Amino acid sequence: MKIVHIIEEVRQSVQAAKKQGAKIGLVPTMGALHAGHGSLIEAAMAECDFVVVTIFVNPTQFGPGEDLDKYPRTLKEDAAYCEKLGADLIFAPSDKEMYPASQLVWVDVDKLTEGLCGAKRPGHFRGVTTVCAKLFNIVGADIAYFGQKDAQQVAVIRQMVQGLNMLLEIRICPIVREPDGLAVSSRNQYLSADERQRAVCLSQALTQCKEQIDAGQRDAAILTARMRTVIEHYGGRIDYVEIVDAEILQPLHAIEGRVLIAVAVFFGRTRLIDNILLDLK
Amino acid sequence: MKIVHIIEEVRQSVQAAKKQGAKIGLVPTMGALHAGHGSLIEAAMAECDFVVVTIFVNPTQFGPGEDLDKYPRTLKEDAAYCEKLGADLIFAPSDKEMYPASQLVWVDVDKLTEGLCGAKRPGHFRGVTTVCAKLFNIVGADIAYFGQKDAQQVAVIRQMVQGLNMLLEIRICPIVREPDGLAVSSRNQYLSADERQRAVCLSQALTQCKEQIDAGQRDAAILTARMRTVIEHYGGRIDYVEIVDAEILQPLHAIEGRVLIAVAVFFGRTRLIDNILLDLK
Repeated sequence: MKIVHIIEEVRQSVQAAKKQGAKIGLVPTMGALHAGHGSLIEAAMAECDFVVVTIFVNPTQFGPGEDLDKYPRTLKEDAAYCEKLGADLIFAPSDKEMYPASQLVWVDVDKLTEGLCGAKRPGHFRGVTTVCAKLFNIVGADIAYFGQKDAQQVAVIRQMVQGLNMLLEIRICPIVREPDGLAVSSRNQYLSADERQRAVCLSQALTQCKEQIDAGQRDAAILTARMRTVIEHYGGRIDYVEIVDAEILQPLHAIEGRVLIAVAVFFGRTRLIDNILLDLK
Repeated sequence: MKIVHIIEEVRQSVQAAKKQGAKIGLVPTMGALHAGHGSLIEAAMAECDFVVVTIFVNPTQFGPGEDLDKYPRTLKEDAAYCEKLGADLIFAPSDKEMYPASQLVWVDVDKLTEGLCGAKRPGHFRGVTTVCAKLFNIVGADIAYFGQKDAQQVAVIRQMVQGLNMLLEIRICPIVREPDGLAVSSRNQYLSADERQRAVCLSQALTQCKEQIDAGQRDAAILTARMRTVIEHYGGRIDYVEIVDAEILQPLHAIEGRVLIAVAVFFGRTRLIDNILLDLK
């Protein structure tokens, strides 16, 4: 496995693989790799001949006062993990390599970015879409892999690919969970032991919500109120609890069709997200 | 020469050409082809093995009250012209093919789009960048050709390609002019015979400006004032007369380096643009 830091080197490696007929898989990450990322790399390995993992803590998707500086950077461990899983190439560029000058060009996705995390993190998604567009163009992959845990990101990236007629395919892999149900996340390591225990409330609220829907409840106001109760019982500070359509992410009243149930909850200064996707006939 | 209307057909034709090792050239146009477009197609023919001309009157780059409806649509003549010049493929999609749903994704370029035409045509450049990003992704060209007449467009597209790490190269071809100096444009056909004669003032103002710079004048205020006088003498209604740096398009006071001198002038309801690019050591 090679580790490269320069755009031109990625392009050369990928070009060489393509010339031999390889199907190229891309797993874009911010590093601090965990089992969630591992499942993406494994999915890419199963489907592609040459798998590129990018590791870049993208400054343009962090707002002022967010955790850009303290975001974990663990390239050595990440590289060992990628190698173990069989990835072919790590691309770990510097900020300067990705943003050599003041960035004036942005991919903006309307509507889908207004609610949920977008409402609380202005500019976050334009940072995400812009860096993904750059990485897609740099790597030239056939398929890119994302995790369902970042549900809004997933919907936004899908919309970007459709809306700009990008040629690559997007694959979404299911959320990987700890035994107690907590979605794995690079930010879980910020939690104290006590917070870690209480953080189970996100997945519990979602599971209970699904049970109520299975039992016939279709009123979003009732369902979200119950989720809020569960989360507050565990002392979580709610950022949002929402039920939206899965494509454009607009709030629903009576739920039907493809539905996203999404929560964001603070424990101390750590913000956790989780979600569940349902297809209601 | 083939004419296709469907994205999938372009991709198949281009893929087939690429498999044979062809270098792909793209000339994006809104049709109503004239000698300016002809020079782009010729440049593409000289450098590439397979030349795609796109003809699409892009609705998202027209503002309310602009000439979207009356913009000339002359596909039959355009196709004959492309065939004569030797182009390999015309892609002439419908609005529905390019924008199958409400367009939620936009490429935005800051700063460069604020002044000049951008100040008077809000949303114009996001329409241009977005449709170009789409066309670049649809065609997968190695090189795309644009005319220097749309100087701001050229700077904006270059910035987009750099800022999103798009792999294709951008070639800029010089302005093609009528014998009296008027830059050729699809909108010249809107002019009455009298307006057509007076429209020579755009290129005359620019030529005189260059002469004054060659003679040592470096004060942008003096130079633009003289250009305004020339244009007003011919009865042109000035939209803007500006001297800006050629890369980020910010107004200059004392001019130096790579400089763009750009004018936009109305005759009746017809808006004409012209410019000159100088490299001052």
